[in-house]
Formats: sequence, C-alpha cells, structure tokens
Amino acid sequence: MTGPVADVDLGCHLFRRLHEIGFDGRGMTRPSYGREENLAHALFMEVAAQYGLEMRRDWASNLYLTLPGRDRTLSVVMTGSHLDTVPCGGNFDGAAGAVAGLLVLCAWAKVGFRPERDTTLIVTRAEESVWFPLSYLGSRTAFGLLEPSALETPRSDDGLSLRHHMQDCGASPDLCGKAPVLDAAKIDCFVELHIEQGPVLLEADVPVGIVTGICGSTRYRSAVIHGQYAHSGATPRCFRSDAVMAGASMMTALHDAWIKAEAQGEEMTLTFGVCRTDETQGNFAAVAGRLELVIDIRSRDEALLERMNGLVIEQAFRVERDHHVRVELGPRTRSAPAVMDAALQADARTLAASLDIPFVSMASGAGHDAATFAMQGVPTEMLFVRNRNGSHNPDESMEMDDFMQGVRLLEHLLRKRAGSET
Amino acid sequence: MTGPVADVDLGCHLFRRLHEIGFDGRGMTRPSYGREENLAHALFMEVAAQYGLEMRRDWASNLYLTLPGRDRTLSVVMTGSHLDTVPCGGNFDGAAGAVAGLLVLCAWAKVGFRPERDTTLIVTRAEESVWFPLSYLGSRTAFGLLEPSALETPRSDDGLSLRHHMQDCGASPDLCGKAPVLDAAKIDCFVELHIEQGPVLLEADVPVGIVTGICGSTRYRSAVIHGQYAHSGATPRCFRSDAVMAGASMMTALHDAWIKAEAQGEEMTLTFGVCRTDETQGNFAAVAGRLELVIDIRSRDEALLERMNGLVIEQAFRVERDHHVRVELGPRTRSAPAVMDAALQADARTLAASLDIPFVSMASGAGHDAATFAMQGVPTEMLFVRNRNGSHNPDESMEMDDFMQGVRLLEHLLRKRAGSET
Repeated sequence: MTGPVADVDLGCHLFRRLHEIGFDGRGMTRPSYGREENLAHALFMEVAAQYGLEMRRDWASNLYLTLPGRDRTLSVVMTGSHLDTVPCGGNFDGAAGAVAGLLVLCAWAKVGFRPERDTTLIVTRAEESVWFPLSYLGSRTAFGLLEPSALETPRSDDGLSLRHHMQDCGASPDLCGKAPVLDAAKIDCFVELHIEQGPVLLEADVPVGIVTGICGSTRYRSAVIHGQYAHSGATPRCFRSDAVMAGASMMTALHDAWIKAEAQGEEMTLTFGVCRTDETQGNFAAVAGRLELVIDIRSRDEALLERMNGLVIEQAFRVERDHHVRVELGPRTRSAPAVMDAALQADARTLAASLDIPFVSMASGAGHDAATFAMQGVPTEMLFVRNRNGSHNPDESMEMDDFMQGVRLLEHLLRKRAGSET
Repeated sequence: MTGPVADVDLGCHLFRRLHEIGFDGRGMTRPSYGREENLAHALFMEVAAQYGLEMRRDWASNLYLTLPGRDRTLSVVMTGSHLDTVPCGGNFDGAAGAVAGLLVLCAWAKVGFRPERDTTLIVTRAEESVWFPLSYLGSRTAFGLLEPSALETPRSDDGLSLRHHMQDCGASPDLCGKAPVLDAAKIDCFVELHIEQGPVLLEADVPVGIVTGICGSTRYRSAVIHGQYAHSGATPRCFRSDAVMAGASMMTALHDAWIKAEAQGEEMTLTFGVCRTDETQGNFAAVAGRLELVIDIRSRDEALLERMNGLVIEQAFRVERDHHVRVELGPRTRSAPAVMDAALQADARTLAASLDIPFVSMASGAGHDAATFAMQGVPTEMLFVRNRNGSHNPDESMEMDDFMQGVRLLEHLLRKRAGSET
C-alpha cells in the first residue's frame, strides 16, 4: 500500500513547540481557555497556513482545519483532539491526536492529494474537566450542547468564569445557543488518535490499540462516612462508630464484587482514588469520626454500571448497620458508555493487518471528545498509541516510532473514508 | 461508715479556677511545662498552704503535697494525677484525679485527722505526650527514668526543648540523673482517680469503675503503603498497585481477627485513626499510589499484643503479594500492660459495696501515670469516674455527683491504706 507519507520531522517540531509553550518547570500546564492553549492553537494555525489548509473557528474558539474535498456537498470526514492539559501534565495527552491529524492533512496537501470528501481536523477547547468541571466542554459546545448557564462556571485555578476566559481568548460566549454548530448528519465519521493512558499496550508489546468502546462511569466524588471520634483504647468495639473500618469494609466488599464480575467475563474498573481521614481531628489515639471517599466505577456495560451502583448503595446500608456510622454518598455523576462504530473498527483492523502494524482491540477506560461524537450518532473510532507511565503527569512517554505507526494507520483510515479515487 | 467528708464546694471552686486558667476560647489548653500548667500548680499550692499541707517540688517540678502521718518512717500512701491538657482538651482529664486527691487531704486536714502513714498527693508534670512525645514524662522523671538526652526533645508547638521549657518553669534539668527521686520501696501504694475516657460507665449506668489493669500497646504511627498512581479507567485490575485497596484489605482482615479474638473471650482494641491518601496527588480519576496508615492495638494481654503484631506483619506481606504494593510499616512503638494490685482492687470493691456506690470492674484502654508506678512495682490501682463524650476534647462532661462518689471511694481506700486508727 502506498500513499502520502506523514512528516516525522514536522511531528517532532510540533511536539517540541508545544513543550516550549506549556512547560511549567516540571510538566505541561496549558489551561483550558488560557494563554498557553491559545498559543498552541496559534501554532496549529501557523502550520495550516503554510500548507494552505482552510481555517475556521466557531463561536467557542474550537479550531477547524480543512483540506477541501472534490465534492464539498458530501458529509465530512473528521479527526481531532485537544491541546489543553491538566496542571503539570504531559506533552502527549490530547496533543498526540491533534498533531496526528495535522500531519495527515499536511501530508495530503504537500503531495496535492484531494480526497472526495472534505477532511477536517477539529482542535477542541477545554477537554480536561479539571479546569471547568464539565465533560468534553469544547466538543459538546461544537454540537450546541452547552447550556448558557454553564458560562458562569468558575475555573478551578482563578475562579474567573468560563464566559470571562472565553472572552479573553477571543471567543463570543454571547452566541451560546444562537450560533450554528456541528450537525452530526453532515459528518461522515470521526476518528481520534490518543495516547493510551494505561499499561495495556506496553504489557501486550504492541504499538497501537483499536478501541472497541469508551467506558461510561458512575461516580460519587464526595462521599463521606460519618462516625464518632472516640478514644482508641477506651472505647470497646460494640460502642464504636468507626468511619475508617466502615470504609475499609465497604471497599473490600465492592472489590470482591469486582473480582467476581471479572470471573464472569465482565469488564469494569473500581477505584477509590481519595480515602482520607480528617487532617486536624484524626490521630493515632482516636477512632476516626470521619472518612472522605471517592468512588469511581467505569465500564462499557451500562447494566453492569447500574448493578454496581446498586451494590454501592447496598453496602452503604450494610456498613451503616454493622459499624454504627452514617454514610453520605453525596451526588452521583454519570456518563454513558459510547460504542465505537463496527465498520470503522473492522476497517482499522484490516488496514493495520495489511500495514503490518501490530495491534490489540481494547476498551477506553478514560473519556474523550470522541464520546461526544459517538453520542451524537456520528460513526466514531479511536486509535490508541502505546505510552509509558500513564497520562496526566510529566512522565507521559510516547515513542515517535509508535506515534508514526498510529499516524500511518490514521492516515489510511481517513483516506479510506474520505475517498482516495481521483 | 463515717469519716472526713470531702468539700464539694472546694471541688467546684478548683475546677472553675482550672477552667479560667486553661480556657483557650473553645476548650482547655494547658501545655506541658507551660505557663498554664504552672498556674494550675500554683493554684494547688495556694490551697495546700491554706490547709497546712507540706509542700515539695522535685527537680523536674513535679509537686508533692503531704499530710504527715503519725509514723513518718513508714512507706507512704500516694495518690495523684496531672494538670496539663492536650491542645483544646477538656477540664477533667488529669485534673479530676489531682482535685480528688487534694479534696481528700484537705478534708483530713480540716478535721485534724492524722493517719498512720504519710499521705501524699503527687501532681505530675507533662503527662500528655502530645507536647513531648514521651510517655508519662513527669511520673517517669519522678522515678529517675528520664534519660538526660531526652532533655533536648522539642515541644510540638514551639519547637523549644524540654530543657528550655523546664527552665522556664523553674525546674533544674541539669540535675537529671543526679538528684534523688522516688523510691518504690518507700511507697505503700498509688491510687489514681481519672475520668473514664470511653462510654463503658455511661452504658453500664454506674458512676464508678474499678480498674483491673492498664492496656499495653503495639503501634505503627507512620505506616505507608506505596502503590503506583495510574489512570482509574485505563488501568485493568491485574496491572494495578492500589494502595487504598491494599489498605482496605489489610484493615478488614485485622478487624476480622479482632472479632475472632473477642469471640474467644480475649480483650483488645484495634484502631486505624489515620488513613489518608495524598492531598495533592490523590484524585477521583487515579488509582492511589500512597496511603498513610496508623495502627494502634491495645490489650492487657501481652501475648495477644504479640500475636496481633505478628498478624499485622503477615497481612502486610499478604497485601504486598495480592495488590502489588510495598508496605512500609515504619517504627513500632510499644508499651507494656500494667497490672493493678489485686488487694487494692478487692478493697475498692468491698468499700464501694459497703458505701452503696454502684461500680463495674473494667480495664483502662488509655495509659496513665499509674502505669509508671505499677511498672516500678508499687501496688497500684485506678478509679474511673463516669464521663460523657470521651476525653481530649472540650466536651468532656463529668457530673459533680459522680465525681464526689469517686472521691468518697478514693478517700476510704486511701484511709484504709494510710491507717485510720488513732
């Protein structure tokens, strides 16, 4: 198989420039709707201009770079990702997908390749919900899904509103709910390349993952177990309301249920990322009167998510009885699982095989902009690239060789959809 | 039964004055070797002077108030407790025992009662190890058990040394290891009254507890479980090193062992008062890479303490295997259980019954100066007084009626030992 070849030097240049833009002394910090995200978008526009790509920004400053197709009335092939990062994150989460898309379009432009359909790289804004606690903010906005009231959401670092930060970035928040947006019917497909955020590809020793679906989640981000502080030596077990023991018992029971689900062939994750007694009141000589817990359950299987949620509630009641505590689960947040398009998956597998690119099929435990497109009914697929040390930290580590394999697969997949016959 | 009657008004006056001295706006703060502890000692000296008691201070500023006996060559009957508090503590922990002893001596002095033996109230210094991390500092010093090197220990609030604070209080730290100290052979017995720090007397609905022994302890005050931070959605179970799940599993297994020990009639407590993921790195979307744990096990049964300690180590190894973590238990600190004197216990029970004071026999889960005396071979006993809301907090709540029942029992017990026949 032949075709336009993506430029590895341009890729290295883009990652280097992105690193310069975002480096905070230790890792990458490019806040959503912040100066560094703007500079990263400007870098992409600069390169797009050099290659003669069409450029457009929507009212929310999502960026669209398009290589025009021969028939501009046809639905558009899309790829894309984001350029913001978590605080002190890495240089590849988001950026890898945006750079990959740009390399494909530049490679096509360079050799004068014109597909049948318009092919568009969307560089979204504000994908990292650590800044504004809203999932997939940029891509949801592009589909007109942002409620105008959300414009008043404060950013986590400076407390200034989304509206304020949008205005600082040259966006037009007053058009929220009024301006034209993406129309799923006019999109042929969306393919997002992303670094893998776990160790599956490393352990499997392959450079690329073909994603089968994006996990949904059930979360309690602010659960609290209320017990009663009491002298550790002077309080017999029967008189205790021990928040820590109640929490340990609940976590252990849920973990056992996870093991059981896996034994039945079901896929999920269960994580208690925060588990914390009170800094000021907890001490070695006191039964704990308070434990903060965060519960995060993810799966591609909606029914399993609901069953596990039922079990969380059941276990909360059980430890209330057994340990004389009060469990306040707090608000539950949810996201629905997103199914990846079967035809795109099949194409990706066939292409990878014919290109001699080793791959595994796997679920995405993390959420991505691709979930928004899938939710809107756009045939959607994700490609993962092997990456060491997880994501959202300065130690993200993707080899350029692996990345270029991913880009090669992306290029072939987009070309197949966009129509390569002249 | 008749005899001198303790003065409830004097008791109320002393608690009121102690409250004035220590009130910090919310609770009591009388730091060890601090200004407020000095003022409390001065209050006791003032009252002792009014009643003509003998006064003495040792080089470490422990205070001795003595009602001389008829035969001053005989071994001495002692009672006592401390007047320092934890930060923002209550007005009764320590103070109740010191006030009780003073009420007894004043009552005797008032009616001109002279027992056969000298009877001495020791008001110790620095019992609360939150200020200097040394158990029973004052009473251990009185027995010459303080290592001179300990004088350089910094106080937790201001970092100034024990030596510095002793000097500020008019003590003579340079005499450490050189000055005469208490001699166990010259002490007939030691009886300490103290508020109960748990809910046993409240639940049993009796005002007084007769203590059978003081629990020893095995503690890991700074255990850490080291896992690996990883994306909560993207990291399958088999690739996780989850510090929280390892901790939960370990705590649950140890708790199960406690239930089993109790079912076999064994007495102990097991407490994880601190259980904490990292404030900065722990978040809802990450497997926890670190969990801090404090393990506190107490029992009167030394063999049970050792068995449980073996189980802690065994469970640490197990979760290292099962959860791919590293468990760093850190230094273990221990204190030996102290046995209360059988004859004193029997006397206390007989006297309580004849005085119509309802009581239960019970262990002390908390440590007290009495443990130092027992360790030195002095026949020792403790009396507990019912108290609501535990101790070491501003809500300690002891009824004066209950207190006076305790004082009455203490008075009879001391009188029996000191020799009431004229």
